[in-house]
Amino acid sequence: MPELRKDPLIGRWVIIATDRAKRPIDFLTPQEDPLPQPECPFCEGHEERTQGEIMAVRSNGGRSNGAGWSVRVVPSIKPVLRIEGDLHRRAKGMYDLMNGVGAHEIIVECPQHIANAADLPAPLLRSAFEVSMQRMRDLERDPRFRYALWFKNYGAIAGAGRVAHSRSQLIATPVTPLRLKEELAGARRHFEEKERCLICDVLNQERDAQARVVMETASMMVLCPFASRFPFEVWIVPTRHSSDFGRATPEELSDLSLVFKQVLQRLKVVLDNPPYNALLHTAPFRNQPDRISHWKTIEEDYHWHIELIPRLTRLAGFEWGSGFYINATPPEEAARYLREALIPEAVHV
Amino acid sequence: MPELRKDPLIGRWVIIATDRAKRPIDFLTPQEDPLPQPECPFCEGHEERTQGEIMAVRSNGGRSNGAGWSVRVVPSIKPVLRIEGDLHRRAKGMYDLMNGVGAHEIIVECPQHIANAADLPAPLLRSAFEVSMQRMRDLERDPRFRYALWFKNYGAIAGAGRVAHSRSQLIATPVTPLRLKEELAGARRHFEEKERCLICDVLNQERDAQARVVMETASMMVLCPFASRFPFEVWIVPTRHSSDFGRATPEELSDLSLVFKQVLQRLKVVLDNPPYNALLHTAPFRNQPDRISHWKTIEEDYHWHIELIPRLTRLAGFEWGSGFYINATPPEEAARYLREALIPEAVHV
Repeated sequence: MPELRKDPLIGRWVIIATDRAKRPIDFLTPQEDPLPQPECPFCEGHEERTQGEIMAVRSNGGRSNGAGWSVRVVPSIKPVLRIEGDLHRRAKGMYDLMNGVGAHEIIVECPQHIANAADLPAPLLRSAFEVSMQRMRDLERDPRFRYALWFKNYGAIAGAGRVAHSRSQLIATPVTPLRLKEELAGARRHFEEKERCLICDVLNQERDAQARVVMETASMMVLCPFASRFPFEVWIVPTRHSSDFGRATPEELSDLSLVFKQVLQRLKVVLDNPPYNALLHTAPFRNQPDRISHWKTIEEDYHWHIELIPRLTRLAGFEWGSGFYINATPPEEAARYLREALIPEAVHV
Repeated sequence: MPELRKDPLIGRWVIIATDRAKRPIDFLTPQEDPLPQPECPFCEGHEERTQGEIMAVRSNGGRSNGAGWSVRVVPSIKPVLRIEGDLHRRAKGMYDLMNGVGAHEIIVECPQHIANAADLPAPLLRSAFEVSMQRMRDLERDPRFRYALWFKNYGAIAGAGRVAHSRSQLIATPVTPLRLKEELAGARRHFEEKERCLICDVLNQERDAQARVVMETASMMVLCPFASRFPFEVWIVPTRHSSDFGRATPEELSDLSLVFKQVLQRLKVVLDNPPYNALLHTAPFRNQPDRISHWKTIEEDYHWHIELIPRLTRLAGFEWGSGFYINATPPEEAARYLREALIPEAVHV
């Protein structure tokens, strides 16, 4: 069973994989080539290579764990947290730990062997977002979990490993992640002072300034944030205030899929098909009865969004040690490159 | 002039290098080979390849910026912050920013072309630590600065670039880094409750348990922390309570140099010469008169230490998005490998 251990100094939880520990020799193995398509576990027709599916979209019917699906959710074969068991929160002297209980699911976004979500048809992306939303709703029913993190890794450097098949991932965690807690605290501070949502204020200022806006549609704004940590960091933010991705409207989901695809295409053109991570930041689960009052403030002050991070640089000692980031591409320039990118006509929203 | 921009949501400062902006093409350049020794800017005899020295250790005399030194401090040729100018703290609508004013110095730790500090004679390391201490004291006199971060990058992956010559770096910043603020807050919370230093408590518990201790000398304990973020993360902690590296005793400095070298040797043996970062965490500057009462609590509750992070893995989407880390080598196993490493007799303390 993996362990969740709490750093006593700053309160950060770390997942320690005690049961499949890496030895020194494991870090010396050279990077392997991507799996060829015939060995891909996620292609249609290879359903037996994954564990039994959790859900799938089969518009034309067809049996479970067979072909004929368009989006398919399976458990991760290398879960960072395990679905079975109790949390067993406990102390070890002055230290806090609990069992590494959680869910780790893979949302396979297409039956064909397409690597980059930039190249998926927008309706398929929409369907994958909808499926993610359903899975998050389902995971929220489990009282052991506080949050589900949706993310996507593209390219080996970004964590996608050897499998070049477009997918996103959901990890449900028994504690609210520190990054999200910090955002919630920042959003609340702003709301307490101004009685306005911080990110709504950001959207207004960015719309006036335009310098960091990549595009804006009926319901989504795409921008390079003022204090971007990374070159070409991009945020996709709904223009309607909402704390919870799970409550996005059908129109917002359609728009998000078109915008997501187009932004990925722009990054692909400008940065020559870079590896990237996409991360959804949304409100934590409301399944803890004693947290409902807390939830009400989050609903007012927090604003969900997706962060896109092309993996162009490596962090060095200064960043690790200080929590300062050094970004050598001002977001105004990144936004200009992305606005001016020549992308295929068909991708225009 | 680079800019410091504050993230409005979580309060993190980011350095935006506005005046030497990287274009998309700059990220596509393939990694270059290390510079051959004759081109190294830091070797003895190549003094004209750096800017004028800030200080140097010349036990046998010799003129400034000539040969005959053992440790030499020069300004960085690619400073992330600039020494000239005012901070000019200001707002841009709802955003906070200031000029990227600071100091960025390189401490060249040996006249010969030795890449890894593991291979330096311990007396040279001691002299380099002493020089770093002097530089930090000097930087503290500049009222624009709040902190000086000492760190070391070894290997291209860890940020050392093309120059394979052992050195550490000092960056003085006009704000206290977020990482340090979080540590100071955690240390204070513990002290307020227990009237004891958190890290002193950690040392006592680790000494009892022994499982995560790599070694202990007269004044230093080396351990793999309970909630290690990274495989083979190692901390070097003085056993005497002290918030400030700048007040280390001569005995502690000598001991630190021996221990630092030995730990680097152990990492080199166990992980086959890995790239790594070393980071000093110490109390912030006391040069802000209105912060003296604050300083008094820091003196009681904070405890300086060095964090060593071998760069064996890359962070993926989950880590970026959540602030959770996944560590596949439990610190108990890392400590055992490091204890059992067969290192050259001469390196034993």
